[in-house]
Amino acid sequence: MPRFIKKTSKKMGLPPGALVHIGEKRLEETRISIIDYDQAQFQEKELEKIIESLPFKDKPTVTWINIEGVHELQVIEEVGKHFNIHPLVLEDILNTGHRPKVEDFGDYIFIILKMLHCDEKDDEIEAEQLSIVLGTNFVISFRESGRDVFDPIRERIRDAKGRLRKTGADYLAYCIVDAVVDSYFVILEELGEDIDSLEEESVTEPTQETLRRIHALKREMVFLRKSVWPLREVISTLERGDSSLIHESTGIYFRDVYDHTIQVMDTVESFRDMLSGMHDTYLSNVSNRMNAVMKVLTIIATIFIPLTFVAGIYGMNFKFMPELEWRWGYSLVLAVMAVIAVSMVIYFRKRKWL
Amino acid sequence: MPRFIKKTSKKMGLPPGALVHIGEKRLEETRISIIDYDQAQFQEKELEKIIESLPFKDKPTVTWINIEGVHELQVIEEVGKHFNIHPLVLEDILNTGHRPKVEDFGDYIFIILKMLHCDEKDDEIEAEQLSIVLGTNFVISFRESGRDVFDPIRERIRDAKGRLRKTGADYLAYCIVDAVVDSYFVILEELGEDIDSLEEESVTEPTQETLRRIHALKREMVFLRKSVWPLREVISTLERGDSSLIHESTGIYFRDVYDHTIQVMDTVESFRDMLSGMHDTYLSNVSNRMNAVMKVLTIIATIFIPLTFVAGIYGMNFKFMPELEWRWGYSLVLAVMAVIAVSMVIYFRKRKWL
Amino acid sequence: MPRFIKKTSKKMGLPPGALVHIGEKRLEETRISIIDYDQAQFQEKELEKIIESLPFKDKPTVTWINIEGVHELQVIEEVGKHFNIHPLVLEDILNTGHRPKVEDFGDYIFIILKMLHCDEKDDEIEAEQLSIVLGTNFVISFRESGRDVFDPIRERIRDAKGRLRKTGADYLAYCIVDAVVDSYFVILEELGEDIDSLEEESVTEPTQETLRRIHALKREMVFLRKSVWPLREVISTLERGDSSLIHESTGIYFRDVYDHTIQVMDTVESFRDMLSGMHDTYLSNVSNRMNAVMKVLTIIATIFIPLTFVAGIYGMNFKFMPELEWRWGYSLVLAVMAVIAVSMVIYFRKRKWL
Amino acid sequence: MPRFIKKTSKKMGLPPGALVHIGEKRLEETRISIIDYDQAQFQEKELEKIIESLPFKDKPTVTWINIEGVHELQVIEEVGKHFNIHPLVLEDILNTGHRPKVEDFGDYIFIILKMLHCDEKDDEIEAEQLSIVLGTNFVISFRESGRDVFDPIRERIRDAKGRLRKTGADYLAYCIVDAVVDSYFVILEELGEDIDSLEEESVTEPTQETLRRIHALKREMVFLRKSVWPLREVISTLERGDSSLIHESTGIYFRDVYDHTIQVMDTVESFRDMLSGMHDTYLSNVSNRMNAVMKVLTIIATIFIPLTFVAGIYGMNFKFMPELEWRWGYSLVLAVMAVIAVSMVIYFRKRKWL
Amino acid sequence: MPRFIKKTSKKMGLPPGALVHIGEKRLEETRISIIDYDQAQFQEKELEKIIESLPFKDKPTVTWINIEGVHELQVIEEVGKHFNIHPLVLEDILNTGHRPKVEDFGDYIFIILKMLHCDEKDDEIEAEQLSIVLGTNFVISFRESGRDVFDPIRERIRDAKGRLRKTGADYLAYCIVDAVVDSYFVILEELGEDIDSLEEESVTEPTQETLRRIHALKREMVFLRKSVWPLREVISTLERGDSSLIHESTGIYFRDVYDHTIQVMDTVESFRDMLSGMHDTYLSNVSNRMNAVMKVLTIIATIFIPLTFVAGIYGMNFKFMPELEWRWGYSLVLAVMAVIAVSMVIYFRKRKWL
Repeated sequence: MPRFIKKTSKKMGLPPGALVHIGEKRLEETRISIIDYDQAQFQEKELEKIIESLPFKDKPTVTWINIEGVHELQVIEEVGKHFNIHPLVLEDILNTGHRPKVEDFGDYIFIILKMLHCDEKDDEIEAEQLSIVLGTNFVISFRESGRDVFDPIRERIRDAKGRLRKTGADYLAYCIVDAVVDSYFVILEELGEDIDSLEEESVTEPTQETLRRIHALKREMVFLRKSVWPLREVISTLERGDSSLIHESTGIYFRDVYDHTIQVMDTVESFRDMLSGMHDTYLSNVSNRMNAVMKVLTIIATIFIPLTFVAGIYGMNFKFMPELEWRWGYSLVLAVMAVIAVSMVIYFRKRKWL
Repeated sequence: MPRFIKKTSKKMGLPPGALVHIGEKRLEETRISIIDYDQAQFQEKELEKIIESLPFKDKPTVTWINIEGVHELQVIEEVGKHFNIHPLVLEDILNTGHRPKVEDFGDYIFIILKMLHCDEKDDEIEAEQLSIVLGTNFVISFRESGRDVFDPIRERIRDAKGRLRKTGADYLAYCIVDAVVDSYFVILEELGEDIDSLEEESVTEPTQETLRRIHALKREMVFLRKSVWPLREVISTLERGDSSLIHESTGIYFRDVYDHTIQVMDTVESFRDMLSGMHDTYLSNVSNRMNAVMKVLTIIATIFIPLTFVAGIYGMNFKFMPELEWRWGYSLVLAVMAVIAVSMVIYFRKRKWL
Repeated sequence: MPRFIKKTSKKMGLPPGALVHIGEKRLEETRISIIDYDQAQFQEKELEKIIESLPFKDKPTVTWINIEGVHELQVIEEVGKHFNIHPLVLEDILNTGHRPKVEDFGDYIFIILKMLHCDEKDDEIEAEQLSIVLGTNFVISFRESGRDVFDPIRERIRDAKGRLRKTGADYLAYCIVDAVVDSYFVILEELGEDIDSLEEESVTEPTQETLRRIHALKREMVFLRKSVWPLREVISTLERGDSSLIHESTGIYFRDVYDHTIQVMDTVESFRDMLSGMHDTYLSNVSNRMNAVMKVLTIIATIFIPLTFVAGIYGMNFKFMPELEWRWGYSLVLAVMAVIAVSMVIYFRKRKWL
Repeated sequence: MPRFIKKTSKKMGLPPGALVHIGEKRLEETRISIIDYDQAQFQEKELEKIIESLPFKDKPTVTWINIEGVHELQVIEEVGKHFNIHPLVLEDILNTGHRPKVEDFGDYIFIILKMLHCDEKDDEIEAEQLSIVLGTNFVISFRESGRDVFDPIRERIRDAKGRLRKTGADYLAYCIVDAVVDSYFVILEELGEDIDSLEEESVTEPTQETLRRIHALKREMVFLRKSVWPLREVISTLERGDSSLIHESTGIYFRDVYDHTIQVMDTVESFRDMLSGMHDTYLSNVSNRMNAVMKVLTIIATIFIPLTFVAGIYGMNFKFMPELEWRWGYSLVLAVMAVIAVSMVIYFRKRKWL
Repeated sequence: MPRFIKKTSKKMGLPPGALVHIGEKRLEETRISIIDYDQAQFQEKELEKIIESLPFKDKPTVTWINIEGVHELQVIEEVGKHFNIHPLVLEDILNTGHRPKVEDFGDYIFIILKMLHCDEKDDEIEAEQLSIVLGTNFVISFRESGRDVFDPIRERIRDAKGRLRKTGADYLAYCIVDAVVDSYFVILEELGEDIDSLEEESVTEPTQETLRRIHALKREMVFLRKSVWPLREVISTLERGDSSLIHESTGIYFRDVYDHTIQVMDTVESFRDMLSGMHDTYLSNVSNRMNAVMKVLTIIATIFIPLTFVAGIYGMNFKFMPELEWRWGYSLVLAVMAVIAVSMVIYFRKRKWL
């Protein structure tokens, strides 16, 4: 449940734009790092305070400020002050329960995404909010934790290969969004393998644990869908390129990410369909087994009940029961019983009950 | 049921615009309070009659008239007369079963919202209708009860901190709408906790009470959805800012509320999905338990029926039953019975029925 | 079934515009009444023939011709001739199985609505078709029966209070549409009460009759929906005021009816949701009861089967059965049986089967 | 299945526009008939070859060529040559598995419809493809079989009554489309009666045959829907009157057919809803009956099992069983048994199990 | 599962446009063949390297380069270099898990389709990605395997019959797309036959294998749908003819393919409906059989239980049991038992339980 709604009640009654951190604190300290580059050179630095980034801001080079940990209000406030960002944006950065969205403020574009990763321990997908502020020559990214998902991008900046160093801040923003969407495929692959193994299990030996895992995966899909669905709209907005901050040559790259997003959504839907199918398979398998058990048992009982009745008759103590006196009475009764049993079995076989 | 439809039959045959109160009376007396403010000063007052508010109306300051209790027709009529409001609007204010909507009458905008709160006693969500008339320099809010949800707004007016005192009536209207939408999150958190505890219950020890509560929560979701769904349209209309009564700088705030509304709707949908999942879990858990019971019992019966049959055979009173005379006949039969029982148990084990 | 499709096969092969009455005849004779009014005066009359209405038609006053019973072809034909109405419109008036629609013919607007009322006898909702032809200064309404639903409107014309006498034919048409939509609320209230009582029943003592009534109500909802759904489009078209026959000041009133229609549809959807929920509740209640019965019975059987087996053993007639000779054999066996029974009950209790 | 997909594999690898007949051959020989008319006169003729129709084509009169049987390729090819029709259109005429569509080629409009009729033998709905080519002054209709559905239209041409003789080829096309849509109502009436009788059956005495027929009707609905759904778009396109071939005065008639199509679709949806409802009713009825049987049987068994146990006790052969010696022992035991049986019945009654 | 998602994790962290082959390698070596034609002549050749195709590229004739096997990166890279194709396109060609799409790059149009064929061995539908680059006078097609689906097109080029040799590259592209869509009908026919035979099976003798195959076919439908659904959009884009690369006269042919795509989708939906229906039929058939078995068995048991009880009574060893002494006691008891059995059978018959 905590994954579907975050405690926001502490905000009740506060004025809009009031800065309150919503969500859990995932890092002890906020870490601020900066990379500044153009085609010719690049510079990388860890910052103590946001104010140290101001000299970079006014240079024509592309500046990428990466902030890990959004629970320290004064850091966010400083960013707001120095980069002239609307209080509502700051509020959204702090509220980590937001759904993906994009907003164009003219001077800058504000993007919220969800970064997903599979928790090793309890096999649950966890979401981390990534907020991006894209200005003319800077990108500020806000993350909740410090997992190393952006290292390949940094590597590409250092290497100076490819388009990255030759292009503007919009291409950097694209690279970040692309990395996020790419990471969804990793999640999908892991889930796909889970589903695959579950499917076999649900056919060969369905246990209650199988059902529990099917339900759990279904919930993961609901969660995944909730994260991915609005993403489509976000990237579609970026691709359309209404903003002057995103150049046309970058638009084509956003179109590529858009295709990937659609692919992710498609796969999520296919997985949902497959899980529903597995659920049905599981239920009919379990009920088939149950029925088979009950049928055989009932048939055993049914065969013996008439026989017991026959035995009961000759257990009666009537004075005058001529059969009891017969020499072959006992053998005859045993024979009759055998005939009854055999003919019942044959009858059941013929009607395909056995 | 009373929550889904209100008795409107007393209106049958009346001309449109006829003022009839529909809904239950929640307050003994109608309370009218007024706050009048601009950046420099503010004034707060309880009114006896609407007419006392007229001096404020013509001043350039922002005037907020809050009316609690809408069952007294002459109060509503007076508001209509003094503020020149269309009879159909007055009719809508009195009909508390209305769905959220917004209508632009040029001189003023008319908004209907639903305020929700969780009833402590029977754990049901209750809705109260909030009608807002937003004019150039006044806001009139009509409520059914007098619960203290707007106190934080009043506090902010008194404090003169933040944007509220510096801006116009449209920002005040925004603050009211925002407070209403924020209160939905509180409801959702409470429901989320209920769902959470129910989920565990439905896995560990499902009782019929569990099912009843799942159904009850499902109904709450239907109700919640009915209240929130049209809200999206309402706020989207306000945000678009077609009306000259809402300034562009306030539009961005309405966009923020819009995001929150979408988030509420998302959560409601997720909760619905989860409740459906829980319903399925419950049903398969209950049927699994039932099946397990029946299976074990049937197996016990099935093992003893052949044994009883054997006992029945040697209970027959035939004269010539050689086994009866044997020295070890009894012991032999007991042994045979044990062998039958044990081999049946082994067979059932092997076929995984036990 | 007759409610979902009317016999139209008698029309097969006829040219379009051919006048054939489809539906049942609900009145012996067609009744024609006329009301003619403006702000200053009004006149009311029963007519023998349509031709008597022509003098009113050319006056600037508003003329309302109400025709009850549409099975007499020559009446409809005369209306067509004198008021210059398209043959297809006349055909639609006679075909009482039409779905609600609106068509603008320039000179006049043609509206089809469904009037609903609850049949007392078999508790079924019955629909009557109401066709309205709205011209510049006249309204012609065609109804199938003569139930007194328009009396309040006539009363308002006679009283000369309110807007009705001061406005044109479009406002009269609005009043008729409004009366129809208002009557839906009465139906919904009745259904709501039925649903309410059924809900309790389906929890406390569900019988097969409960199920039958849930299914019946579900069908009523399908029927209701079919009548109301297209209505939305009809009224939305009227509200938009593309036609010069509907003045802008009346448009706002149609917007009000539109709101009511949405509310009706909302309620119908909520009722559908509730009925589905009740169906589920019913089914799980019934199956719970059944399971409880079966479980207890099976447990009783299961306890006695081993006991009977023990009794069977000592009923065997072996010569050498030492226990039979023991002084306390009988008592011992009874004691053993008691121990078996008690321990089984304890075991079942512990596993929560009892 | 053959109704849902037709063998098109023989077309694999052929160039587009290649003429191959797809579907079954329903007539031995292709029959070509022609009717040529204007307001003053009309002429009717059976043709041997398409070329005989050319003299009519160039006259200003309306020419209707009706071709029954589309399996003779050279007939279709000739039509294509003489009337200058696109090869893809000819291909579509031959491919009888097409879905309804309309295409405007400027000089002519090409329409594909489905004619439905109920097969007497196996109660299945069968579809026949009707292709219409509408030119300025000619209509060519292609049908698969020669059933007499267009006779009423021919009759109207001969009679010279109504609009038909006074108007152009577009009105004739309308008449054909109208006849097709009208014939759907006949199908719906037949299905409606089937559904009606089934409904009663599914309540009073549900057998497996009932279920089979419900499933069969459901499939008919899927088939019907597939034929009718695209029709809406077809007629909507014709009604909008973008083509110069359809006069505005005919547009209003197409609007009328459009209404009928909507009505057909509405009824199909209602039938689907009803069939789903009946399926549910059937299932719960069957399971109710089954449960009632099982319950009574189980109760009988449960009452006798303890009694048999008591009898078993006194059937034991212990030496020292004092009760056996008692004078009234037997009577007492019988009395005890009666008390047990009666109290169990009372208990079951009280718990409403019986 | 591998069919729903392909391993893309090896791309994680790579810059966009990085060429990595995703999917399985289906051919040992990449094969490149070229056909160059205009109305007058044609030339056909196998190529070693892409560079050999350059002479053809600059001629006004239509050049079709068909590349089978996309796992050799340098081939794809060369194509990119010589034909000036965007790196993202090359990336998409190599990523064989893409969904169908079309992109207009001005100079060329890039199309991705899915070719489907039924795998003989495991009866599964397999998809192969077909990428098409359509330039002004060339078409480059990239395929994963070398199955001979395009042979009929090549044959038509060699034959110089039909439109193909007279038209441009856009018509060639159309022919390829048409061949792909046509091949879907073959798949659908095979599936249709499977469904047909399954349907009979599910009515006459449903086994668990039947259910397994229904589920398998359902999954095939999900897969088919995923491949076909986006195709509609692709072809709709091509048909609209916004690009100058597709002439208007070819647009009409794409409209024809569009119709076929709709037909494929329609059939897939119908098949889904039918499979759902079969699933229901199967389940109710199985449960009916099960119920019939259980009912008969329970009735047998129920008849013998009271009889066994009677036998038990006279098996008791009371001293004073007068009936035991009677001359006809035994016969009488047997008669009473017969009466009980017969009357129970009659009762069960009357209540239609037997």
